[in-house]
Amino acid sequence: MNRKIKAAIIGATGYTGREAIIYLLRHRGVELKRLFALDYLDRPISEAFPILTGMTDLRCQELDLELVKDECDAAFLCLPHTVAMEVAGKLVGSKTRVIDLSADFRFSDVKVYNRVYGVKHEYPKLLEQAVYGIPELNREQVKGCNLLANPGCYPTSVILPLYPLLREKLIAVEGIIIDAKSGVSGAGRKVAEALIFAEVNESLKAYSPGKHRHQPEIEEQLGQASGGEVRVTFVPHLIPMTRGMLSTIYCRPQTGIGENQVRKALNDYYEKEFFVQALAEGTLPRTADVAGTNFCHIGFAMAGEGLVICSAIDNLGKGASGQAVQNFNVMFGFDEKEGLV
Amino acid sequence: MNRKIKAAIIGATGYTGREAIIYLLRHRGVELKRLFALDYLDRPISEAFPILTGMTDLRCQELDLELVKDECDAAFLCLPHTVAMEVAGKLVGSKTRVIDLSADFRFSDVKVYNRVYGVKHEYPKLLEQAVYGIPELNREQVKGCNLLANPGCYPTSVILPLYPLLREKLIAVEGIIIDAKSGVSGAGRKVAEALIFAEVNESLKAYSPGKHRHQPEIEEQLGQASGGEVRVTFVPHLIPMTRGMLSTIYCRPQTGIGENQVRKALNDYYEKEFFVQALAEGTLPRTADVAGTNFCHIGFAMAGEGLVICSAIDNLGKGASGQAVQNFNVMFGFDEKEGLV
Amino acid sequence: MNRKIKAAIIGATGYTGREAIIYLLRHRGVELKRLFALDYLDRPISEAFPILTGMTDLRCQELDLELVKDECDAAFLCLPHTVAMEVAGKLVGSKTRVIDLSADFRFSDVKVYNRVYGVKHEYPKLLEQAVYGIPELNREQVKGCNLLANPGCYPTSVILPLYPLLREKLIAVEGIIIDAKSGVSGAGRKVAEALIFAEVNESLKAYSPGKHRHQPEIEEQLGQASGGEVRVTFVPHLIPMTRGMLSTIYCRPQTGIGENQVRKALNDYYEKEFFVQALAEGTLPRTADVAGTNFCHIGFAMAGEGLVICSAIDNLGKGASGQAVQNFNVMFGFDEKEGLV
Amino acid sequence: MNRKIKAAIIGATGYTGREAIIYLLRHRGVELKRLFALDYLDRPISEAFPILTGMTDLRCQELDLELVKDECDAAFLCLPHTVAMEVAGKLVGSKTRVIDLSADFRFSDVKVYNRVYGVKHEYPKLLEQAVYGIPELNREQVKGCNLLANPGCYPTSVILPLYPLLREKLIAVEGIIIDAKSGVSGAGRKVAEALIFAEVNESLKAYSPGKHRHQPEIEEQLGQASGGEVRVTFVPHLIPMTRGMLSTIYCRPQTGIGENQVRKALNDYYEKEFFVQALAEGTLPRTADVAGTNFCHIGFAMAGEGLVICSAIDNLGKGASGQAVQNFNVMFGFDEKEGLV
Repeated sequence: MNRKIKAAIIGATGYTGREAIIYLLRHRGVELKRLFALDYLDRPISEAFPILTGMTDLRCQELDLELVKDECDAAFLCLPHTVAMEVAGKLVGSKTRVIDLSADFRFSDVKVYNRVYGVKHEYPKLLEQAVYGIPELNREQVKGCNLLANPGCYPTSVILPLYPLLREKLIAVEGIIIDAKSGVSGAGRKVAEALIFAEVNESLKAYSPGKHRHQPEIEEQLGQASGGEVRVTFVPHLIPMTRGMLSTIYCRPQTGIGENQVRKALNDYYEKEFFVQALAEGTLPRTADVAGTNFCHIGFAMAGEGLVICSAIDNLGKGASGQAVQNFNVMFGFDEKEGLV
Repeated sequence: MNRKIKAAIIGATGYTGREAIIYLLRHRGVELKRLFALDYLDRPISEAFPILTGMTDLRCQELDLELVKDECDAAFLCLPHTVAMEVAGKLVGSKTRVIDLSADFRFSDVKVYNRVYGVKHEYPKLLEQAVYGIPELNREQVKGCNLLANPGCYPTSVILPLYPLLREKLIAVEGIIIDAKSGVSGAGRKVAEALIFAEVNESLKAYSPGKHRHQPEIEEQLGQASGGEVRVTFVPHLIPMTRGMLSTIYCRPQTGIGENQVRKALNDYYEKEFFVQALAEGTLPRTADVAGTNFCHIGFAMAGEGLVICSAIDNLGKGASGQAVQNFNVMFGFDEKEGLV
Repeated sequence: MNRKIKAAIIGATGYTGREAIIYLLRHRGVELKRLFALDYLDRPISEAFPILTGMTDLRCQELDLELVKDECDAAFLCLPHTVAMEVAGKLVGSKTRVIDLSADFRFSDVKVYNRVYGVKHEYPKLLEQAVYGIPELNREQVKGCNLLANPGCYPTSVILPLYPLLREKLIAVEGIIIDAKSGVSGAGRKVAEALIFAEVNESLKAYSPGKHRHQPEIEEQLGQASGGEVRVTFVPHLIPMTRGMLSTIYCRPQTGIGENQVRKALNDYYEKEFFVQALAEGTLPRTADVAGTNFCHIGFAMAGEGLVICSAIDNLGKGASGQAVQNFNVMFGFDEKEGLV
Repeated sequence: MNRKIKAAIIGATGYTGREAIIYLLRHRGVELKRLFALDYLDRPISEAFPILTGMTDLRCQELDLELVKDECDAAFLCLPHTVAMEVAGKLVGSKTRVIDLSADFRFSDVKVYNRVYGVKHEYPKLLEQAVYGIPELNREQVKGCNLLANPGCYPTSVILPLYPLLREKLIAVEGIIIDAKSGVSGAGRKVAEALIFAEVNESLKAYSPGKHRHQPEIEEQLGQASGGEVRVTFVPHLIPMTRGMLSTIYCRPQTGIGENQVRKALNDYYEKEFFVQALAEGTLPRTADVAGTNFCHIGFAMAGEGLVICSAIDNLGKGASGQAVQNFNVMFGFDEKEGLV
């Protein structure tokens, strides 16, 4: 790698922005060129994130898309849903390849997007062009893409274990139940009463049962895995911890299918993958063991006639910025681990 | 109430012992007479639990069953499973009525107990005599009993919402999935590597999927509610908080049954109950809102064609010592709330 | 007690309001009559605080001072500083006695108040009339007062241990250093980025060193104890826990003064007090042991030639609403513990 | 760097062992050759620390010092105090250079060690040979040494800010007070009742005031800085968080010394250092901003006539294994940051 890839982060002062910065500063093939934000303008990013003190002198600046197109080979969009689409829309077609961490390009069907996010998509054509990127499942498509739709955190934790099982017809497509648990950073750096420490600490609750926006995203991807329609029951929970996500998935094996076939399928798909680890028999994952990493740990057990799968990721790692950098590495021909370990 | 009821706590230096002490010191009809333990002998209980400083001068002493029988109208057994049975066995028949917080008398079938707890029950006859006590569901039986089997924490959180629905045939008995989450005090004051702060904090995991000892306890009670056999999938999780328990329950309503019928059933059973609260429509419980109390908060929602129920208790309150004191209040004719609010 | 005392809480939807509600609902001599707030208008207070579900049907209403004067014997002001003064100013002189949890009447010198809180006090005359109430130190004054200035949380934790030592001339007035640590609920239910879970959890920091508004409050009270001017170094810290406050105080004993004299002084002042506990020799307090209570636990040790004192309270209990209710009990002739245990 | 340095970790299954493994696996100039432990024998280290799943196949083995001498250029001793000395004693003199994370070689005076640790040092001669290694302060000595005494966590957090101030005579040597706060991982992976989650969470306490073993270590090093005897008051506290350490230091500037001189001294010593960051004026450090890193963040403020300094490190990073690897990098001629960012 002679020339370094020049990268910009747009939306640098949220948590996914912070993680992307950390990974890219560590990355030996990247020159992190520009940080765009609405706040901390002209101030060092280390004021927004003191953990970056001494790591970089980069400052935040107002978004300037011409500058991005001129200077940068890659742009990471760490923007809210519905805001990202316009930025992406204006960048795609230039030499700058876009990695969008929002939901704006995750659906193939614009009607689903419009319904789920309650807005009218302004760049529906780009939905076809965008690649939903989980490198372990569609590395080749990721390689060539110019608009990468980085998956949601919950969907990543669910799709990784279920994709092989649905693709190989090992489990029923009906009756899949996902009881998901997320640390609080999953809500971003949003300032809301429900997220202040005294409300979250020493507490636990479910929210948006059957109504979370990640449910249709999960259903679309699992549908593609199974080759048909999949409907799931998805109930997320807020956990009093900063980082980490655990999805406990309940499903029914097809007749004659047991632990061995499940294990074999996971091994077949992931044995050679670095970031997805099927744990040893009898072992269930803990979120602490993937915190701060890009790993996904998967464990499972039979419970009665059902199959229980537990999948742990860091919601900001494999669930967001880590996977974004992994996708970037695939897109630009780097070792997938670069910047991530 | 003229004469105060004299009470002893056997196993006073664990967390359920501590909570029982706090409730009984507050109880206007009780004289807390004796605290028995294996440790802190001859030392004030406030050394074991400094939160009791200034509240009582009671000291721990070695168990003396004759003393209990002579002096005490009631004995709370805050002992490990398999240890409680012998103490209960020796007390039953005396004037001392026993409230056992262990699992030793929770099953009606001794074979189930022996299998689940891996020992041979020494007092199988007493299983018939014991009353599994959830006052909201079997107050009359509790009243007259001399050996009260206080339910497990997970079972309490599950039985309270499901009992009315199964009894009224509103949901299918098959396919019930319980994804339960417990704070760490549920493991007691046990000293184990898996329970030290640095292992539990900022982490999350499932454990014993389909194999937890509370599963058969749940199944027996739900079976009695439905009038037939019930098998559930039960997966408990360890949450980085001290107190609190949330059970997220997935089940299928019978044809034609919707939110209204579910709400009506919960209201019919619990409207007049103080400690069980069916929350307003659209509201799901948070464990913080029942922490330190004897309340159970129940909320639910339809998710697709399924029903999702969330039930929150304090694992040491309604899940253990709180319910024990509530049962005691029923047994001895006190207001059920006495000592508990 | 025949007639119940009628009480109002003004500012019911913050954390000190919530705690006051809980204590007063439990109080056998109080009828909690009115809850005033700016939000949750006409809605049950249990919507603001689901922990109150089933405990009360009271609703929030807009402040109506005439109603308060007509109906209520006592008003608890759980309002922000600078807002409380006007409400108090309008109530004092009516039959309604005021317990103000804000700082608005804590200083005797209006110039100090104006400087510290950056506003001009509108009722400077009332400062003379107001009583700074720590029942253990000035019970008689509290009894007769109509305007009770309830102390700050940090000051309470500091004054309780230092008052006897300064009064008895056991320690030097110079060089007192207070390293104070507070749980996050001390900041109230305020919604701010610095208070969201992901910023506070797994973190620790000092703030406002030498500049916190509680420092002059501490200095005035310690000055009164010592009979001269006292200047302290006060550095508060934010701790990743919801409730609890620990002040570690460093001071120098006068020549010839050692542990025994310190212990004797604490005993002389507090031996007969229920809520202030000087711990056994060699024992230092933990905040968990006073959480949810109105207790103050005090421990100390000699370290080299200095004296180190640790004082633990619940910032919302003895540090705010608990002490307010204790003061109320003194004012209205109740047992001081009523509602508080 | 052609040949990789071969390294062993002795005591691999504790928290400092885990961190050292993580750093050394990431290190491009190191081949991590052997992991020695008393437990997990013949089992992959990823069973002890699932966070290492997929990162290494190394297994734990019984200590074999001949193997270490034969194979390894460097040995990291992550052993308890009093155990490390014997291992070090047997390795020193071979080609294997020793980095000892215990306290066994931190004191220059064996009598102090024997008194503080309550044992008789078996290799007192080696105390002279050992180098107490804080690279920012004595890089040259570290370079050449064969036995590196890696500083304690509390001492590191205290010495870094105070060394320049004492050396430059900016503050009084008398009356230094250190109120230190540590996350729970500072106690290691020790299994003790006082460290279980339900005891530590939502609590806070001081321990060993004036008696902690790190106090004499601090005093020896500060004495060397000042060129005379230094006595400090040192009170550590246990904080409900996993990682992180904050020392709040109270001291008196010499006459005429103010913020500017303090700032200049810190800049003079640390401006060119990567891992020690004097924060911008008015900024105090948060432990979260150094968590998982080898950084030390230092902030300060005048409070009255005193100086308050806050110093934050990760107790397992700059406070233990991070600094050990930094010292290793100096000893073996690597870039100091290698493996650490």
